[in-house]
Amino acid sequence: MKQFERLFEPRSIAVVGVSEDAVRPGSQAVHTLLRNGYEGQIYPINPKYTTFEGLDCYPSIAAIEGDVDVAVIGIPARGVVSVIEDCARKRVPYAVVLSGGFRESGTEGIARQDRMLAVAREAGMRIVGPNCLGVANIHKDVYAAFGSITRPPKLRKGSVSLVTQSGGFGYSIALACARAAIGFRNVIATGNEADIDTIEFIDALLDDAQTKIIVAYIEGLANGRALLDLGRRALAAGKPLLVWKGAVTEQGARAAATHTANLTGSYDFYQAVFKQAGIIEIKEIHEAIDFIKAFEGQKFPRGRRVAVMGGSGGSAIVFADAAERSGLTLSTFSERTKHALAQVVPDIGAVHNPVDFTAGYIAGGNVGNFETAVQAVLSDSNVDAVCLNFATTAGAACLAGAQVLSALAEKTPKPLFVFLSTPPSETGNGLFVLEEAKIPVLGSPVRVAHAIAALAQYREARERNASMRNQSETADTPTIDPGGTLSEAESKAVLECAGISITRDVVVRGAEDVRFEELAPPLAVKIVSPDIHHKTEIGGVRLNVRTRAELETAIAEVLDNAHSLAPYARIDGVIVSEMVIEGFELIAGIVNDAVFGPVVVVGAGGIHAETLRDTTCRLAPFDERTARDMLDELKCRPILDGTRGKPALDVAAVARALAALSRLGWHNRATIAEVDINPLFALPSSAVAADALIVGRRAAQPPIGE
Amino acid sequence: MKQFERLFEPRSIAVVGVSEDAVRPGSQAVHTLLRNGYEGQIYPINPKYTTFEGLDCYPSIAAIEGDVDVAVIGIPARGVVSVIEDCARKRVPYAVVLSGGFRESGTEGIARQDRMLAVAREAGMRIVGPNCLGVANIHKDVYAAFGSITRPPKLRKGSVSLVTQSGGFGYSIALACARAAIGFRNVIATGNEADIDTIEFIDALLDDAQTKIIVAYIEGLANGRALLDLGRRALAAGKPLLVWKGAVTEQGARAAATHTANLTGSYDFYQAVFKQAGIIEIKEIHEAIDFIKAFEGQKFPRGRRVAVMGGSGGSAIVFADAAERSGLTLSTFSERTKHALAQVVPDIGAVHNPVDFTAGYIAGGNVGNFETAVQAVLSDSNVDAVCLNFATTAGAACLAGAQVLSALAEKTPKPLFVFLSTPPSETGNGLFVLEEAKIPVLGSPVRVAHAIAALAQYREARERNASMRNQSETADTPTIDPGGTLSEAESKAVLECAGISITRDVVVRGAEDVRFEELAPPLAVKIVSPDIHHKTEIGGVRLNVRTRAELETAIAEVLDNAHSLAPYARIDGVIVSEMVIEGFELIAGIVNDAVFGPVVVVGAGGIHAETLRDTTCRLAPFDERTARDMLDELKCRPILDGTRGKPALDVAAVARALAALSRLGWHNRATIAEVDINPLFALPSSAVAADALIVGRRAAQPPIGE
Repeated sequence: MKQFERLFEPRSIAVVGVSEDAVRPGSQAVHTLLRNGYEGQIYPINPKYTTFEGLDCYPSIAAIEGDVDVAVIGIPARGVVSVIEDCARKRVPYAVVLSGGFRESGTEGIARQDRMLAVAREAGMRIVGPNCLGVANIHKDVYAAFGSITRPPKLRKGSVSLVTQSGGFGYSIALACARAAIGFRNVIATGNEADIDTIEFIDALLDDAQTKIIVAYIEGLANGRALLDLGRRALAAGKPLLVWKGAVTEQGARAAATHTANLTGSYDFYQAVFKQAGIIEIKEIHEAIDFIKAFEGQKFPRGRRVAVMGGSGGSAIVFADAAERSGLTLSTFSERTKHALAQVVPDIGAVHNPVDFTAGYIAGGNVGNFETAVQAVLSDSNVDAVCLNFATTAGAACLAGAQVLSALAEKTPKPLFVFLSTPPSETGNGLFVLEEAKIPVLGSPVRVAHAIAALAQYREARERNASMRNQSETADTPTIDPGGTLSEAESKAVLECAGISITRDVVVRGAEDVRFEELAPPLAVKIVSPDIHHKTEIGGVRLNVRTRAELETAIAEVLDNAHSLAPYARIDGVIVSEMVIEGFELIAGIVNDAVFGPVVVVGAGGIHAETLRDTTCRLAPFDERTARDMLDELKCRPILDGTRGKPALDVAAVARALAALSRLGWHNRATIAEVDINPLFALPSSAVAADALIVGRRAAQPPIGE
Repeated sequence: MKQFERLFEPRSIAVVGVSEDAVRPGSQAVHTLLRNGYEGQIYPINPKYTTFEGLDCYPSIAAIEGDVDVAVIGIPARGVVSVIEDCARKRVPYAVVLSGGFRESGTEGIARQDRMLAVAREAGMRIVGPNCLGVANIHKDVYAAFGSITRPPKLRKGSVSLVTQSGGFGYSIALACARAAIGFRNVIATGNEADIDTIEFIDALLDDAQTKIIVAYIEGLANGRALLDLGRRALAAGKPLLVWKGAVTEQGARAAATHTANLTGSYDFYQAVFKQAGIIEIKEIHEAIDFIKAFEGQKFPRGRRVAVMGGSGGSAIVFADAAERSGLTLSTFSERTKHALAQVVPDIGAVHNPVDFTAGYIAGGNVGNFETAVQAVLSDSNVDAVCLNFATTAGAACLAGAQVLSALAEKTPKPLFVFLSTPPSETGNGLFVLEEAKIPVLGSPVRVAHAIAALAQYREARERNASMRNQSETADTPTIDPGGTLSEAESKAVLECAGISITRDVVVRGAEDVRFEELAPPLAVKIVSPDIHHKTEIGGVRLNVRTRAELETAIAEVLDNAHSLAPYARIDGVIVSEMVIEGFELIAGIVNDAVFGPVVVVGAGGIHAETLRDTTCRLAPFDERTARDMLDELKCRPILDGTRGKPALDVAAVARALAALSRLGWHNRATIAEVDINPLFALPSSAVAADALIVGRRAAQPPIGE
């Protein structure tokens, strides 16, 4: 861990704010360092004492003779800035400010936080917090922290690091993991993130050799796009990143707004990043436990084909249900596997998948047969992962079964999971043997299915990431600066330049300009004005125009309506478009988000668009394969393949259009605020934008993604 | 427990199949009875022994002098029928057949099961199993069982009864509950259900005064409709029924088919029953634990408005997210509550909802203030339930907080939940105090939200059930016997009789029969034939007919097409219908299911119908309020309220049509197999069936519901 090395492996820690009151944060920090045997220097600071808990106590930071790597500050907020100034003079590289009373507490606190930060920046000092529980390095017994992080039980050493924007909730995850025998490397509660934020900490952990898995609780990020880069770096490094995103609903976001005032960003966009970067989302505490156990096994399924074996038919059914709901499929065994199983599975059992070797099988003296059965299934090339339902298996049978699996696990590259409901004390040490063998033992078949699905998802993301082509090449992408809002005609011209097909249109001043015979009716007639964004509402649209006479009437009407209903609008003319009367209506667009930068959204169009919200999104830019993934997520996807005897539609063309749109948005992220293509028609052999609007971005601040 | 009293409280138990091999089921049963201190007579049976484990051992059932209330049979299948015959002669009222080798094992086993059942029926004996783990009455130390049910740890006594179609998985739920200190009354593994089935057991438990909550794991029911009646009876009795339905996906059902060969029935229909009968579905083992704890609290929220309080902002956000996802809303506090909170919550905290009394509040000497704060929130009439996030609170603070809540819980009728992540050993006895006070303590805020939602759902179902009017009155419902398939015209005539509006149609033999001037174009022209069910496919439909000339052509065409493409079809003429060109297309219908009887389905129609599967269903008959609930579940529901400036549609008329359809289906359940209304148009002031098909039922067996 190059970055933040002295923060996490300090040779000395000064603690400002120790007191006879053991509840005070500083006192807690010193007590914890002493209790846990921290090997560096501890400098308690309080001008009232000369010693504290047997240590020399100093009146101030300045009074310390040796170097101080970390200053832990736990005094009331009003005194913090002056201590930070002391630290700056002493050239302390890191301050961990536990105290509250900063940005989260109103105007005065905001000013205080700004002053503190200015002092630190000036001195090149880095700050953790304020308003945080602090940081710990479990391997090195470093606790620059207070509260739950410092209380028993002591976390065991392991390879998981936790970064959390909520000390209380984040440490709840750590405690639950600890009860499941999971060990930790670093625990980091980031508090207000005045200086070092979640992104920077995760970035540093990716370079920490001792950290193998990172768990983060995130309420909001100032730069959501950084999470995409970080996630991809984590993927490439082979370090799974598990994220619990809080504040994802309206009520949750409102609760967060009153809590730490983080910008939360749209949950849809976070989910897009999770997909693009192979970040595993967790939504329950036990998922953190299960997924960590799964990833600690270091084995990844090559696909989503799973086998389930056991003596409990009900457990197999429950697993099969959960597998299907998680996007896994039960493998079809090879004849060879079935033959091998038939030799060792009782006649009343089942040699297909689920394998039912009947209840009491192992206890009935079938240990050798059990090994043969599991080995046969593990060896089947149609099987990517195996769930063993031990269910209520207990005592000697549980131990014997565990020993078999433990031996097999050493030899197989496939993930093997056990569902076991027997209390630990009744497993005849079987649970211990399984845990030693790094075989995840989970409390329900549903949890096993979810964990296998998480592994599969991670592996798929790794492969996608490795094969992804660089999409920031923009040779074919126009550079534009729309300023305000472009008209339909202008917007479509941009799209066409970007490689997206548009309907055949002409823009005219009046009916006399139209060469009717060159157009294929039915036609749409729409007003063209930079000032009219909702054309329908002012009677600026006429559809299904079929004859020259109808066309003349329609053009006259939309012009009249615009003049009378939008008298101040500049009128550039009328656009006459060939209507698309087949295919399927999609909507597509770009939102240039303040937190995530340009994001491409696609969804089902038409009457259902608003109610069904059948949409998905990805951060731009992306390739056609990603665009296809997006389309695959839509509920309306089967319509694109042709339903009710209708022809299949050109999914590849839609994907090309989306990828082109993503490049357009990315390339012009400084100048485009929004692009709406509504509808984007999927047709049998093309994809065509029938209406479009491009809105310029006011360049108040640099775009996200610079 | 009148029903099955001697089964669950036997004065004597004979165990057939004891052996020196302790693993044999009979041996396990006797050992368990002895170990747990069963107070009745135990009669081990094996002609080889004179004593077994210090008890007199008998050569046969006949050799026993006293009465036998329950015979437990654990010998190989081939010997079971003869033992059942012995039991019949001895007038044993109940046999628990543990042995496998019956229906689940092929032809021979099926015959054996039938013979056994015939003997039992003849003698008036009732059978549990075969192929089951057996039954236990934890209160009376009765174990007519083997396997996991008989193994340590011994379940503690309590008020939960478990009925499971899978011994291994069902007992896994019991073991998990046991670790969470939940106590049990009866545990019943039903096995093959040759005689007594899940429905009958649950029915008996509803009459058992000691059973307060029933948990069932169900793979399939022969009579799904019985679950509706049972659920309603459970609702009326105030005994929550928690059901885990296994085999709900395609893969799960396939696994079940090979397992016990139960008819599984459609999961959609099970879910309909769950909604109609207030059955709480569980999909994870921890949900069983959480919901049991919630229901054991015996307090129900009056609505779905929840408050959340704590010192961990992150936990509050996570709760708010989960609450929204579970259909709960965060209460808006009264001014009085906010004022009361302002007196006791620190300035940097928050006095709205979530209440943030800041970390370390209780530890900081604020026990009295904490009580005032919680009391204020509990007293607010806008609050229906409260979640207290203790999160990592530990030691003395945890105990003090627990004592406050314990005292408040005694006085409030509102449910109070605690999220606590501190390990039990570090809670300073606080966990114990909370559990004593029946305050559910759950391991994540998400679990608290789900548990509150389950309570709310249960309370809503109770209210709905109490106010439901009897819908089997069918004065206005026609009695029909369609035989085969009715034509569109005939089908619509039936619907009209049943009170469902239909489009204005005439059936004619040729164009000369049409009085064109009496019809409002556009018109639809469709072939009428009892032999043609897919009119479009043979060119039997012409739409958008606007003039007399077009009509004549259309009629000639559909007749010609029918003659040439369906030469053997009987042609009754042509139906000319006024087309509905506004409103929203729904689909509605009846499926007379083999397991559930008549079920009404409604959903979004049109192009999205097949892909989006935006449908819901209820068992017929039902009232308009239920029909409205159905519509409220549809994703397309907002369209009915008018979107994009379109008028609101007549939801009440649609609900009336659905209720009428449900009465039609119920009243004619012996004769109707299927009704399809596609489309059913929702219009601004009516609901109109534009096409319909009624299919008769072949009366091979009495309909479900008799």
